[in-house]
Amino acid sequence: MTERFSFTIKARDGSARTGAIATPRGIIRTPAFMPVGTGATVKAMFPEDVAAAGADIILANTYHLMLRPGAERIAKLGGLHKFMHWDKPILTDSGGYQVMSLAKLRRIGEQGVTFQSHIDGATVELSPERAIEVQCLLGADIQMVLDECTPYPATREEAKISLELSLRWAERCKVAFGAHAAPGQALFGIVQGSVYPDLREGSARALMEIGFDGYAIGGLAVGEGQGAMLDMVEIATAVLPQDRPRYLMGVGTPQDLLLSIARGIDMFDCVMPTRSGRHCQAFTWSGRLNLRNARYAEDATPLDPESACPAARYERAYLHHLVRSGETLGAMLLSYANVQFYQELMARARDAIEAGRFASFAEDVRRRYAATPADEALDT
Amino acid sequence: MTERFSFTIKARDGSARTGAIATPRGIIRTPAFMPVGTGATVKAMFPEDVAAAGADIILANTYHLMLRPGAERIAKLGGLHKFMHWDKPILTDSGGYQVMSLAKLRRIGEQGVTFQSHIDGATVELSPERAIEVQCLLGADIQMVLDECTPYPATREEAKISLELSLRWAERCKVAFGAHAAPGQALFGIVQGSVYPDLREGSARALMEIGFDGYAIGGLAVGEGQGAMLDMVEIATAVLPQDRPRYLMGVGTPQDLLLSIARGIDMFDCVMPTRSGRHCQAFTWSGRLNLRNARYAEDATPLDPESACPAARYERAYLHHLVRSGETLGAMLLSYANVQFYQELMARARDAIEAGRFASFAEDVRRRYAATPADEALDT
Repeated sequence: MTERFSFTIKARDGSARTGAIATPRGIIRTPAFMPVGTGATVKAMFPEDVAAAGADIILANTYHLMLRPGAERIAKLGGLHKFMHWDKPILTDSGGYQVMSLAKLRRIGEQGVTFQSHIDGATVELSPERAIEVQCLLGADIQMVLDECTPYPATREEAKISLELSLRWAERCKVAFGAHAAPGQALFGIVQGSVYPDLREGSARALMEIGFDGYAIGGLAVGEGQGAMLDMVEIATAVLPQDRPRYLMGVGTPQDLLLSIARGIDMFDCVMPTRSGRHCQAFTWSGRLNLRNARYAEDATPLDPESACPAARYERAYLHHLVRSGETLGAMLLSYANVQFYQELMARARDAIEAGRFASFAEDVRRRYAATPADEALDT
Repeated sequence: MTERFSFTIKARDGSARTGAIATPRGIIRTPAFMPVGTGATVKAMFPEDVAAAGADIILANTYHLMLRPGAERIAKLGGLHKFMHWDKPILTDSGGYQVMSLAKLRRIGEQGVTFQSHIDGATVELSPERAIEVQCLLGADIQMVLDECTPYPATREEAKISLELSLRWAERCKVAFGAHAAPGQALFGIVQGSVYPDLREGSARALMEIGFDGYAIGGLAVGEGQGAMLDMVEIATAVLPQDRPRYLMGVGTPQDLLLSIARGIDMFDCVMPTRSGRHCQAFTWSGRLNLRNARYAEDATPLDPESACPAARYERAYLHHLVRSGETLGAMLLSYANVQFYQELMARARDAIEAGRFASFAEDVRRRYAATPADEALDT
């Protein structure tokens, strides 16, 4: 296995591309979807099933883990991989997004951010240097710079001030990373700029000047709508270097993923497959299903006849019974089936790109999902 | 595979014995512990892990399944085994115990019992004939007679009236079973009589006169204490035929199981391993652990170094983190480890009986569990 971090592009189809990110802990096939393991667990799944579903990498949350059980504690226990029984790559976000969305009494300054833990109310400081320190203590293979996730909506001026702070933090992160990271670990910058094209472009160029192993696009899927999101993705990917992975943070639906891959995105993370799984919803090759619906009470069809996931072989009537009864096994099976569906979606997308038929593949998935009745897609 | 139900004794050590119950769906090695799959799922476990843990048979609840999703619906979907992806034997209780403990507005008469569903308040009737019909619809391999689970405490007169009603119901169950059961299915009678030795003996003899494939001892572990429970077990096993399986219902702790095996019991069921697993507690070869306890926060020991269960390989510090965070994976791992511990306990008990060293084995387990600190055994 390589001791260096590298990214190799394998095939292209329009702006879409497949490739391989090599890390000391294994290869990540791109486009890649990273299941989210917020608190050192991909919720309601055994780690071996996350791997069996096809995931090459998972995401874990700096914010959550520094609060509980604590980064120093995880380091003392041998690092996050050992702690959570996951030996493939892990990407950790820097905590910026969670500080904005979960913590209370935030105070943001040049040095960093001070906030109250949402768990026990303790006052916690997070600086660019501490964000890197925590990620190094966890042993993350891909680390993210600390940024301010610009709230939406924001005026152009607010967005500009915010992204400039994020750029200064990004520089400090790079210095800290250079001093502390282990060989083969990587650091990604994060493009901000809200919905302002020139700010997005400026952010991307400034980050490239600092120089990172990969580039994320942050601050999207926060209410701006799919059209605006894709516009910002296009602007960023037009500027970002071809030979570095591009990661669209916190996205999204199968449709979002394919439209973003078409624009040159290589990596994604989202809680959608696992959160939906805990809320009775399934992503399948026949579209989205809400297993609470009475129409499944006597439906002897397997959850997803087209999926290779062991969990997708259970009959819909049984899953309906489990979710109606509030049984944990319902969430376990749906989470597993959803995580594997997202991996199968990525695998088929990679095959389609390599065969030069990505557009027709994406159109086929779009049609399957367009047929989903409205009551299947409702969040409960 | 046999098409007949049969029981063969293999070895004896004092009153303890090992054997094999043959059914069309497979062999049940005795002494056997049946994990409880109340609502067509052993809570928080994949069925393949229940099998991997070593279980030859599980128990399901007539009461719960007739209310939701309904016995006729399960029959229409191909029976309970297919519905819940479990192809080994299933024993169903008759619903008598749950009617007493869960349902409201019960009315018990000669015909049967009328009650309100605890799920939707619907009025439901359960007669001996309906109890057998439901168990046949589910496709249960071992079925139980409908009985009145005598409340504790009860006067001698109350206990006598109750067990006589249960005996008349047992006769009706046998007639219904003869008319409806499939080849190879078995029907067990249930000894009642509260804590009155002569009533217990009378109940056992009357059931033997009717004649059943096996005999359960019911109405115990309801508050009478371990001493009284074991006394009633001894009285029943002294009378019951040697060549039929004896099943002690709803029991119990590892210690309860070994003391009962020493008195000639062959089968058990209990929610303890799964319920404890959902309440942060583990049964291990080093005793009982409560993973919430702060002493485990940095304990890098595997949950149970002596167990072969994959779930028992996770470190205590990680399990502590999961249960403190309310993560589903905590319940999944502890349920799996506990169910396997109970199976390993039965496997070692069988080996000890066959080697003629059951008493010393039981004493060894007693000592391991006696060392459990009080705060580990607390129910939370």
